[in-house]
Amino acid sequence: MTIPPPCLTEGITSLLGSGVYMAAYPLHDGDINEEATESNDRKLLYEEWANYSVFFKYQPIGLVRKYFGEKIALYFAWLGLYTQMLIPASLVGVIVFLYGCATVDDNIPSMEICHPENNITMCPLCDQVCSYWKLSTACGTARASHLFDNPATVFFSIFMALWAAMFMEHWKRRQMRLNYEWDLTGFEDEEDHPRAEYEFQVLQKSFRNHQKSKPKMEKLTYQDRLPAYMTNVVMMLLMIGVTFATVFGVIFYRISTKAALHMSSNPVTRSHVQLTVKTTAAIINLVVILILDEVYGAVARWLTVLARNLGSCPVSAWSNWAPPALLFPGSPVDPSLPEVPKTDKSFEERLIFKTFILKFVNAFSPIIYIAFFRGRFVGRPGSYLYVSESYRMEECAYGGCLMELCIQLSITMLGKQLIQNNLFEIGIPKLKKLLRYIQSKQGAVPEEERQKKLQRYETDHFLEPFAGLTPEYMEMIIQFGFVTLFVASFPLAPLFALLNNIIEIRLDAKKFVTELRRPVGARAKDIGIWYNILRGVAKVAVIINAFVISFTSDFIPRMVYQYKYSQEGSMHGFVNHTLSFFNVSHFQEGSEPLDQLHLGYPVEICRYKDYREPPWSNTPYELSKEFWTVLAVRLSFVIVFQNVVMLMSDIVDWLIPDIPKDISVQIHKEKILLVDLFMKEEQGKVRNLESRLSTGDKEKCDQGSNNSTVAFDHQGAEQDNSAKPQVLWSSSSVRVKALVGHL
Amino acid sequence: MTIPPPCLTEGITSLLGSGVYMAAYPLHDGDINEEATESNDRKLLYEEWANYSVFFKYQPIGLVRKYFGEKIALYFAWLGLYTQMLIPASLVGVIVFLYGCATVDDNIPSMEICHPENNITMCPLCDQVCSYWKLSTACGTARASHLFDNPATVFFSIFMALWAAMFMEHWKRRQMRLNYEWDLTGFEDEEDHPRAEYEFQVLQKSFRNHQKSKPKMEKLTYQDRLPAYMTNVVMMLLMIGVTFATVFGVIFYRISTKAALHMSSNPVTRSHVQLTVKTTAAIINLVVILILDEVYGAVARWLTVLARNLGSCPVSAWSNWAPPALLFPGSPVDPSLPEVPKTDKSFEERLIFKTFILKFVNAFSPIIYIAFFRGRFVGRPGSYLYVSESYRMEECAYGGCLMELCIQLSITMLGKQLIQNNLFEIGIPKLKKLLRYIQSKQGAVPEEERQKKLQRYETDHFLEPFAGLTPEYMEMIIQFGFVTLFVASFPLAPLFALLNNIIEIRLDAKKFVTELRRPVGARAKDIGIWYNILRGVAKVAVIINAFVISFTSDFIPRMVYQYKYSQEGSMHGFVNHTLSFFNVSHFQEGSEPLDQLHLGYPVEICRYKDYREPPWSNTPYELSKEFWTVLAVRLSFVIVFQNVVMLMSDIVDWLIPDIPKDISVQIHKEKILLVDLFMKEEQGKVRNLESRLSTGDKEKCDQGSNNSTVAFDHQGAEQDNSAKPQVLWSSSSVRVKALVGHL
Repeated sequence: MTIPPPCLTEGITSLLGSGVYMAAYPLHDGDINEEATESNDRKLLYEEWANYSVFFKYQPIGLVRKYFGEKIALYFAWLGLYTQMLIPASLVGVIVFLYGCATVDDNIPSMEICHPENNITMCPLCDQVCSYWKLSTACGTARASHLFDNPATVFFSIFMALWAAMFMEHWKRRQMRLNYEWDLTGFEDEEDHPRAEYEFQVLQKSFRNHQKSKPKMEKLTYQDRLPAYMTNVVMMLLMIGVTFATVFGVIFYRISTKAALHMSSNPVTRSHVQLTVKTTAAIINLVVILILDEVYGAVARWLTVLARNLGSCPVSAWSNWAPPALLFPGSPVDPSLPEVPKTDKSFEERLIFKTFILKFVNAFSPIIYIAFFRGRFVGRPGSYLYVSESYRMEECAYGGCLMELCIQLSITMLGKQLIQNNLFEIGIPKLKKLLRYIQSKQGAVPEEERQKKLQRYETDHFLEPFAGLTPEYMEMIIQFGFVTLFVASFPLAPLFALLNNIIEIRLDAKKFVTELRRPVGARAKDIGIWYNILRGVAKVAVIINAFVISFTSDFIPRMVYQYKYSQEGSMHGFVNHTLSFFNVSHFQEGSEPLDQLHLGYPVEICRYKDYREPPWSNTPYELSKEFWTVLAVRLSFVIVFQNVVMLMSDIVDWLIPDIPKDISVQIHKEKILLVDLFMKEEQGKVRNLESRLSTGDKEKCDQGSNNSTVAFDHQGAEQDNSAKPQVLWSSSSVRVKALVGHL
Repeated sequence: MTIPPPCLTEGITSLLGSGVYMAAYPLHDGDINEEATESNDRKLLYEEWANYSVFFKYQPIGLVRKYFGEKIALYFAWLGLYTQMLIPASLVGVIVFLYGCATVDDNIPSMEICHPENNITMCPLCDQVCSYWKLSTACGTARASHLFDNPATVFFSIFMALWAAMFMEHWKRRQMRLNYEWDLTGFEDEEDHPRAEYEFQVLQKSFRNHQKSKPKMEKLTYQDRLPAYMTNVVMMLLMIGVTFATVFGVIFYRISTKAALHMSSNPVTRSHVQLTVKTTAAIINLVVILILDEVYGAVARWLTVLARNLGSCPVSAWSNWAPPALLFPGSPVDPSLPEVPKTDKSFEERLIFKTFILKFVNAFSPIIYIAFFRGRFVGRPGSYLYVSESYRMEECAYGGCLMELCIQLSITMLGKQLIQNNLFEIGIPKLKKLLRYIQSKQGAVPEEERQKKLQRYETDHFLEPFAGLTPEYMEMIIQFGFVTLFVASFPLAPLFALLNNIIEIRLDAKKFVTELRRPVGARAKDIGIWYNILRGVAKVAVIINAFVISFTSDFIPRMVYQYKYSQEGSMHGFVNHTLSFFNVSHFQEGSEPLDQLHLGYPVEICRYKDYREPPWSNTPYELSKEFWTVLAVRLSFVIVFQNVVMLMSDIVDWLIPDIPKDISVQIHKEKILLVDLFMKEEQGKVRNLESRLSTGDKEKCDQGSNNSTVAFDHQGAEQDNSAKPQVLWSSSSVRVKALVGHL
C-alpha cells in the first residue's frame, strides 16, 4: 500500500512494510468464552488474572510470562510490587491526614484568625477594584490549610523518600528472583536482537568485496543520525515551549477572568469569584494536560519510527544516495557493525527518556508554578507588580498557596487517572474494534456464515495491535511522580494511587487478554531505562519536598516564630507577627481602593502578609530582618533535609542487598556443580592425554602451570615427574575457569 | 609457641598458628643484583619498575600481575591512573594559584586595607590585655588571603568535583579493560576462597550425622558475632573520642599559650605570638595525627584478627563449648554454610570501612574545626564569649580563617606525606630487617659460611612479611581526601599529591620487590570497598567545598556587596561595609583594654569585623539585616552549588560508558563463538539421538519446545514430523543458553 521506506529490514518486516501482508502476529490460545472442556491458557488468564473479583490475589506472573513473554510479565510484576508497596504508604498517609483533621481545632494560628475579636483589617489584594477586608473571612482557608500543613507532613515526606528508596531496592531483589526463576541470570539483551540487519550487511559486504578503501565508520553514523538528532532537539524545544505556553495561558485566563469578575458590581458574582476561577482553571489545566499527553504520545511514536528508520540500519538507508565505497567500509568483523542493533535500543531508550521529560514537564509545570512561583512576586499594597499594563501577578489566599496546590494536585491526579483509564484505555480501543468490525462487515459475505467459519487469525485481526509497553510504564511513572514529588503537600496521594492501581492491574490485564492481539514474546532481564527514570524521580522528589516544606508551607515561619520571636515559646501572636503594616496614605495616585468604606469605617493602617518594615521605620516597606532570618532558616532546612534524606536513602540502599541471599547461594551452588561437571569431562580427556604424555615433553607442562594456582612451587621445574598429572589437571581447571569467565 | 586459637582453619594456617612452622611464603624469583646471564622477573621488575629513573614511564602492569598476582597489580594500576589523572588537576590548580598571584595587586579590598589613608581603628581582639589596632597592619594577611580566595577557586572546586567523577569513570573503564585482559570477566570472588573450612564442617557433619534436630542457624551466627560487633562499636567510639580530645587539646593549647603570651609585656614576644602559636599548633596537630594513625592501624589489624577468629568459622569456634546438637545443624547443603567465607570478606570490608572512618576523622577534624567552627562563635567586642573562666573562643585574623586553613592543610598534607613516606615506609622496614638479621646472627654459624650457603627461603625470611594492601590504599584515599575535600581553599593540593605519588609508586614498587617477602598471589576483579569509599569521599567533597566557598571564604559577602549594596557596582567600600561600629563607652566593667592609649590617641568608636547593628540603632550590637541577607545568599549558594555539581557528576557518569566499546564488542563476539561451539557439540549428540527418535515419541518433543522461541507456531503440535529435528535443536539451544545463564 505504501512505498517501502529505504531502511526496512529484510524478512517479514519488509513484506509488511511493502504491503504484501496486512499484519503479522502470534495467535491467541483460543476464545475466552469457549465452552471446550480443556481450558486454554488465555481462558485461565482471563479467569484468574484479568478479573476484578481477584483484585486481592497475587498475580499469576508465571502464567503471564508463559503466555506473553518475560518483558510483559516483568511489567506486571513491577506494577504488582509497586501497588503492594503503596499499601503501607497510603496507610501512613491516611494517618497523617487524620492527624491533621484531629488537630485542626488545637491549631493556634487558625484559632487566632477565626477568633471574632481578632478583627484585623487587611489591605486590598489588588489596586482600585479590591477593597479592605477582614482577616476572619480567611478562617475557612486557614483551617483547611492545617490539614495539609502540619508537622506530620514533614515526617511523611521523609518517610516517603525512604519509601521510594525501599521500593527501588525491593524491585531490584524481585527482579533478581524473577531472573533466576526464569533462567535469565546470564542472559544479555544483545542476544535476542534480530540479527537480520547484520546478515544483510554481511551479504552486501560480500557483494562489494572488491572495493578496498576504508573510510571512517564513526563519522558516517554521526552524519547519518544527525537528521534524527536535529528533529529530536527541535521537537523537544517546541513541545516544552507549547507546555509553558499553555501554563501561561491558563495563568492569563485566571488573571483576566478574575479582573473581569472584579469589575462587575454584582456582589454575588464577586463572592463566587475565587471558587469559579480556581475550579475552572484547574479543569482547563487538566484538559490541556490530557490533550498534550496524547499529542506527546503520538509525537513519541512518530519520533521512534523516524529514529528506527534513520538510526537502526544506517548503512542500507544511505546506500541509495551515497557512493558505496564510502558507505560499506570494513570487514564483517568490523567492531562497529554489531553495535547497530544495540544502538537502536539505546536510541529508543533516549527517546523514551525525552518523551518522559515532555510528559513530566506537561504534568508538573502548573503544579510547580503554584508551589514555587505563584504569590512570590506580587509586590506589596500600593505597589503591586504588574506583568503588563493591567494584569498583575497572582497572589495566594491568606493560608499560602498550599491549599491551591492541594486542589490542583488532586484534580490533576484524579482527573488524569479517571479520564485516561476510562476514556483512553477502555473507550477508544472498544471504538476502534467496532470500527474494524464495521469495515470488515462491508464485505459481501453474510454475517452468520462469516461468524461460523472465522479462523483464529481472523478473529484476532479485529483486535488492536500491541503498541509496546511505553504508554503503560509512562502512566505509572507519572503517577509515581505524583506520589513522591509533592507528597509533603498532599498526603492522600499514595491512597489515590493505590485505589487506581488495584483497578489498573486488572484493567491492563483485561486489555492484554481480550482487547489486544497477542504480542510477540520478548525476553528482558530488567525494566530498562524505566528504572533509571524512577531513580531520577526519587532523587528529584527529595529536593522538591525540601522546597515544598520550607517555602510553600508555613512550617519554617512557625518554627522561627516559636523559638526566636515568641515571648512564651508558644504560637500565640504568630498571625500578628506575619502581618506587616501599611499606611493607607501611602497609596500611590490611582491605586487606592475605590470603595474606601467597604467595611463601614475609614481605615488608616491596614495589614498584609509579608515580612516588611512598618511605615514608621527609616526604610519603610523594605524587606525586614525577619524576612531574611526566615529565609536563612528555610534554606538551612533545605540543605539539612536534602542531605539527611539522601544519606538515609544511601543507607537503605546499602543495608538491603541487591540479590536475595537464597538466590545468590543457589546460583553459587549451581556454578560449583557446573564447574565440577566440566572438570569431570575434562579429566576424561586428560586420561587420554596422559598415555601420550608418558613419552614426556616437559616444557609444555611447565608452560601450562599458572603462577597464581601453584603458590608454593615456583620452582616446580625441579620437581619429579610424578607431579605431572597434578599440574596438567590444574592447567585444565584454569582452562575451565577461563571458559566460565568468558561467558 | 602460642596456644592455637580454637578457630583457626585446617592446613598450613593451623600449623603456623600452633608454631610448627615459623612462616610460610612463596619464594622470590632470585636476587635483584644476581650476575646470572638469564634475567629473572624480579630483576626485571627492579630495573624497569622499582626505579626512580623510570618515573615518567607507564608501569609494566602485566609483569607486576605475573609476579605478584592480580590483587596487587590492580592496586598499582589504580595508583598509576590516579597519578596520571592528577596531572591535569595540578595543572589547573597551578593556573588558578597563578591567577591569584597575578591579580593580587588588582584586588580592591586588600588595596583598601593596605592604603595608609584608610587608617581604620579596630577594636581589641580580646578583653583587657589586647588593645586597639590599625586595620593596615592586616595588610599582609589580606593580600595573602587573596591568593586562595578569589573567584577562580570557585571554578576550581567545580572542576575538581567533575574531575573526581571523571576519575571514577575512568577507573571503572580501566578496571574493565584489565579484567578482560587478565581473563577475569566471569570471575567471582567466592571462587578463590579457601574451601578448607567448608570441608571441615562437612567432615564434622558426617561424624555427627545421627543427630536429627535442626535448630536455627541464623541466631547462632548472630550470637557468635556479637562479641566482635561490640568490640568494634566500643573501639570506634573510644577512638573517635580520643581524636576529638586531641583536637580540643590542641585548641586549648593554642588558647592558653596565646593568653599567656599576651600577658607578657615584652613587645617583641607579643609580635611573634601569632606566628609561634600557629606554627607550633599545626606541628602538634601533625604529630598527633601521625601517632594516632599508627595506633589506628594497629587497632585495625587487631580487630581484623579478632573478627577473623570470631567471625569466619563460627561453627568450629563454638564446637568446643556448646552441645553439638545445637551447633551442627542441617546437612552439608545447608544454604547458610557456604556463606561462611563470604561473610568473612564482608566483615573485613566493614572493618576497613571503620578504620577509614577513624583515620579520616583523625586527619580532617582539625581542618574541619578551622574551616567551619573557628572564629564563628567569638561574640563581639565588649562581650566576647568564654569557654571557661579565662579562656575565650578563638578568633580568626582579619582575612578570615582561610589563610590558617591553608597553613594547616599544607603542613598536614606535606608532613604526613614526607614523614609517613620516609620514616614509616622506608625507615621502619629497614630497621626491622636489621633486627631480624641481628637476631639470626646470634646463631653459632660463622658469618661468611652462612652467607654462602644461604638458600632462597633463608634470604627471603629476613624480609618483612606482607601485611596486606590496606595501609597503601588507606594512605592514598586520605590523600584523595586532601585533594578533593578542601580544594576550594588550597588549589595546590593536587600538585603536592602528584609530586608525592610519582615517588610513591616507585617507593611502593621498591618495597614490594626488595623489602617484602613475596605475597601469595591473589585474584581480584576490583579494588573492593575502596571504590565505594572513593565515591563517598567524592560525594562529601561536593558539600564540603560548597560550605568552604560560601562560609570560609569571603566570596559571597563580596558578591552580595557588589550587586546589592555597592552604589557603583564595584568593590570600593567593601571593607568599610564588613566592619561594624563599637562605642568604647559600651565596654563592660573590666573588659576594656588596659592600654587605652596604645595607638597614641584616645579612641571613641572602634570597628570590628561582623555584621551587627551600630551603637546608635534601636537594637545596638544585634545581628543586622546584612548578616541575615548574606547568610541567606550563602545558604542558597550551597544549595545551588551542591545540586548543580551533583547533576553534572551524574551527567559525566552517564556520558562515559562503564565498559570500553572495543572490550564490550570483543566480549560479545567471544560469547557468540562459544555458544556456536556448544551448539556444534550438542548437534553431534542430537544426531545420535535422531536415529533413536525415528521410533517417534511425540509428547517428549512437544514438552521440550519453548513458547518464546517458537513465536509463530503455537500450534506446533499440528505440524508434520519433519519439524522434529528443528524443535529438538531449539530445545538444545535453550539448554545451552540456560547453561550460559547460570555461569
